[in-house]
Amino acid sequence: VEIHDGRRSATGVPALERIVFFSDAVFAIAITLLAIDVRLPELSANQTNTTLLEELAKIRPAFFAFALSFGVIAAFWVGHYRTFRVVTRLDSRLITVNLVFLFFIAALPFPTSVLAGQGDVPVAEILYAIFGILTGAASTFLWLYVVRAGLVAPTVTPEIARFVTYRAIVVPIMFALSIPLAFLHPAVVWAWWIAIFPIQGLISRRYDVHHPAEDPDPPSIEA
Amino acid sequence: VEIHDGRRSATGVPALERIVFFSDAVFAIAITLLAIDVRLPELSANQTNTTLLEELAKIRPAFFAFALSFGVIAAFWVGHYRTFRVVTRLDSRLITVNLVFLFFIAALPFPTSVLAGQGDVPVAEILYAIFGILTGAASTFLWLYVVRAGLVAPTVTPEIARFVTYRAIVVPIMFALSIPLAFLHPAVVWAWWIAIFPIQGLISRRYDVHHPAEDPDPPSIEA
Amino acid sequence: VEIHDGRRSATGVPALERIVFFSDAVFAIAITLLAIDVRLPELSANQTNTTLLEELAKIRPAFFAFALSFGVIAAFWVGHYRTFRVVTRLDSRLITVNLVFLFFIAALPFPTSVLAGQGDVPVAEILYAIFGILTGAASTFLWLYVVRAGLVAPTVTPEIARFVTYRAIVVPIMFALSIPLAFLHPAVVWAWWIAIFPIQGLISRRYDVHHPAEDPDPPSIEA
Amino acid sequence: VEIHDGRRSATGVPALERIVFFSDAVFAIAITLLAIDVRLPELSANQTNTTLLEELAKIRPAFFAFALSFGVIAAFWVGHYRTFRVVTRLDSRLITVNLVFLFFIAALPFPTSVLAGQGDVPVAEILYAIFGILTGAASTFLWLYVVRAGLVAPTVTPEIARFVTYRAIVVPIMFALSIPLAFLHPAVVWAWWIAIFPIQGLISRRYDVHHPAEDPDPPSIEA
Repeated sequence: VEIHDGRRSATGVPALERIVFFSDAVFAIAITLLAIDVRLPELSANQTNTTLLEELAKIRPAFFAFALSFGVIAAFWVGHYRTFRVVTRLDSRLITVNLVFLFFIAALPFPTSVLAGQGDVPVAEILYAIFGILTGAASTFLWLYVVRAGLVAPTVTPEIARFVTYRAIVVPIMFALSIPLAFLHPAVVWAWWIAIFPIQGLISRRYDVHHPAEDPDPPSIEA
Repeated sequence: VEIHDGRRSATGVPALERIVFFSDAVFAIAITLLAIDVRLPELSANQTNTTLLEELAKIRPAFFAFALSFGVIAAFWVGHYRTFRVVTRLDSRLITVNLVFLFFIAALPFPTSVLAGQGDVPVAEILYAIFGILTGAASTFLWLYVVRAGLVAPTVTPEIARFVTYRAIVVPIMFALSIPLAFLHPAVVWAWWIAIFPIQGLISRRYDVHHPAEDPDPPSIEA
Repeated sequence: VEIHDGRRSATGVPALERIVFFSDAVFAIAITLLAIDVRLPELSANQTNTTLLEELAKIRPAFFAFALSFGVIAAFWVGHYRTFRVVTRLDSRLITVNLVFLFFIAALPFPTSVLAGQGDVPVAEILYAIFGILTGAASTFLWLYVVRAGLVAPTVTPEIARFVTYRAIVVPIMFALSIPLAFLHPAVVWAWWIAIFPIQGLISRRYDVHHPAEDPDPPSIEA
Repeated sequence: VEIHDGRRSATGVPALERIVFFSDAVFAIAITLLAIDVRLPELSANQTNTTLLEELAKIRPAFFAFALSFGVIAAFWVGHYRTFRVVTRLDSRLITVNLVFLFFIAALPFPTSVLAGQGDVPVAEILYAIFGILTGAASTFLWLYVVRAGLVAPTVTPEIARFVTYRAIVVPIMFALSIPLAFLHPAVVWAWWIAIFPIQGLISRRYDVHHPAEDPDPPSIEA
């Protein structure tokens, strides 16, 4: 696998830009399609305020599942955005690794819809956690690959690379640890998942204190 | 939170461009997905012109709800477009604030579908108004944030900033005031919502008279 | 309405580029969402080759409606692409006009779905023709606006402008003339609509013969 | 058909960039919409872990069909990406050829949904193979067109062009040969389809050995 400069292109559409663009489009579609499952069932026309409120209350779990997955995909997007800010070259394997990662992003609306409809059943939470593990692992692997293959800017020191790996790997680890919690109560596992956001934020902030100059806009799941 | 220049990027994909791009994709998908709820029910094959016209008449409210939300999302897009025309730097908090705003944009097809199906029930109008308030508040907050954090071009004087704030805050205020109207008649609350467009246009035009040179293409909900 | 240079932007995201980008995303989503209505009904698992072929034959009209609308939206995209190749400046009214045009593009999946399901009923053809007229009129108006407001490159002579207007206005005229044909037979009105593609191609080619140098890549519905 | 430089544009939105952009959006939407058909049927609320697992097992074929088509569209995207890396000029016929290719990409979710629901019926496999042949033929034709019309960079020697043609034409040939296999067993035809990926990879790698310098990032279906 030979390496080449991401900007070199005969057409004026730089190679890296096209990959980033295509990825962004997949992220944007997946994140927006989530809301398609937040829909009332077919209702007769003669609803009252009371019956409509009851129906809306019934689809509250679907709305929460949409909000959770919006946050999860947004966090992965921020990670992808920050990874590609320091990628300066690409090779054909990076394209494959990126497509595998996008496969899991595109698939996320499926476990989300299961969670929306059957959130009381532990199997629904476990399915969601499995997709979280796989997507998080793909995201971590993408970062490890660009570092190992030497595709990143020289400003990424081994220390910075290790720090970003820690922050990325937190996601699949947290999703893996959430699986036994699924048998306790849905609220417990949801709380655990939501905790991923501040934890990633904390890692980022701790890093900022020690290296304020090296990475002025450090990757963070909360931003 | 350290600030950095939006154009500085190792990869040739400027940071600000990627954020704007991702936002545009979310806007475009949300605005186009709205039409997916304007569909005839499953009909048998042997329809006549008369029965088909009757069925089309029944989904008129769904078409109007699509048209209304297309206008609302388009207006928010224009506001976003104008905000980012003067944003020159970004920090990680701006990315979070922008993602929260996009969450409400991506969610809008949901209250639109409720309005399409149950537009005669006040609760449907109130739900739509609540999402209008939240999206409008997020949009106003995004503007206030970039101004307070000093991320905008120096050409944005305090006076211009105040003017843009007024115009942005009109949207959540108008949606909030529409809630009591929902108990009168759907037509009243719809008229009120549609009035947001010319009111924003008026604010823009009044501003243009006093400051024709400072902002040659002033933000406006009508354009 | 003051005019400003499309490239001038504080952020590095040129104004014209963002509008073109947003428009392209709406076009791409509308054109791809069309296929969502080409679906088999829920079938039991024990189908044979014969019964599956019968079911596929039943949704042939849905596939043809998808193919027709793909062609129609693609033709409007080509027109938009060619218009914006010569647009050099923008004003806020152009943004409004463009959004109105995009409204009709985003709405096209609706009459397409009616045509897919009820193509034998003249009302379905008339509904499609009405949306064709409105979208074609918006497309023609967009071109007339950029020329009248002086937003195009000086290479666009009055003669070229008139020629492009002719080619654009053919679309709404052909859709208008198709309305009475809807009462004859679906095949007649479909043939008429498909004839729009070669007719636009003919106008383009005739123009090419007289002005080969002025517009090396003349707008054409067929390309 | 006159040729012109893809970068020449009055507006700052280069012609080639806009075509590539629009294509990427269509690819991204088609690839992400695939997952919309991986959904549980409407289930009552009182599911147990066992019944939910049974329901999930039932939609396994839908998930596999999504994964297969994700791979197929991703492979076509990589081919398109590599083709346009060497395209330096465009003419109006290229726009038409590209739109015809995108038509088949946008259509692929339809045979995928048939495969997902009726994968045991040979007709479902044959339908999928037919769309594979047509899309692969359009993809090969796109490459042949840009080479024949002289729209590619001079670095593309006749030998490189021939090699890329071989690799492109493998896809429709493999799909054509899979049609008789559909009458044996679904697993056979699926294995055959999946074999397309390593075969394309092999052709690429063999080429790399002989021409390491000429094409540092050779087109490959696996990357």
